[in-house]
Amino acid sequence: MTYDDNNVFAKILRGELPCHKVYETDRVLAFMDVMPRGDGHVLVIPKAKARNLLDVEPDDLAELAKAVQIVGNAVKTALSADGLTVQQFNESAGGQVVFHIHFHVIPRFEGVALKPHTGQMERPDVLAAMADKIRAALA
Amino acid sequence: MTYDDNNVFAKILRGELPCHKVYETDRVLAFMDVMPRGDGHVLVIPKAKARNLLDVEPDDLAELAKAVQIVGNAVKTALSADGLTVQQFNESAGGQVVFHIHFHVIPRFEGVALKPHTGQMERPDVLAAMADKIRAALA
Repeated sequence: MTYDDNNVFAKILRGELPCHKVYETDRVLAFMDVMPRGDGHVLVIPKAKARNLLDVEPDDLAELAKAVQIVGNAVKTALSADGLTVQQFNESAGGQVVFHIHFHVIPRFEGVALKPHTGQMERPDVLAAMADKIRAALA
Repeated sequence: MTYDDNNVFAKILRGELPCHKVYETDRVLAFMDVMPRGDGHVLVIPKAKARNLLDVEPDDLAELAKAVQIVGNAVKTALSADGLTVQQFNESAGGQVVFHIHFHVIPRFEGVALKPHTGQMERPDVLAAMADKIRAALA
């Protein structure tokens, strides 16, 4: 399987599409999922090109995992969440929709089920407010 | 939140409970989930004590992520899977049942849905045969 330079996250990384950014280093980017499965659902991606877990460079994956932890702690604090669900999908059969490796970090609350994967688009002002909260927890 | 030394995975690491091992280094262990959500469902854990993503040492997490990739590639090859779903649950609200950090690596096949989390126990001989296949792919 090859890497498609025209996937949505490649376009976000090149600045060709906007995102609600919450965290960035020279190697990773984290931003709000526009179709959240719950309040505060963030995606964490490497800047390096990789289709998914099967082809990512181990060092890029290690760096990505560390970023998932940093973002996960921030999201949990920002939203006073009770827990976190982390998901990472590989190939269509595995649930992958965008073919640039990404981790889903989803704050969880007692008694609140996840909404469907790739469900409804969230309003930009709601995502922006959520991103503000998460950035504040990271500062 | 503290680490409970009597959780099931701590007992497996101490050799007090058996497991169908597929991969082991000085820092990580991977074994079959006894309540698989699909054929070939493997759990990958660090040997270091950590409750979940919120408290794991970043270097242990990085090592764990690399092991998830190694095991993921092996599982996909061993079962000729079409994809992989990776899940990692934190605290009860996040879906966590055993409080030693672990990644679920689940082979996926076109048109086959995941079975419920913590569903039915698989037969030991089925798990043993699956573990044999995965170890062969790792050899």
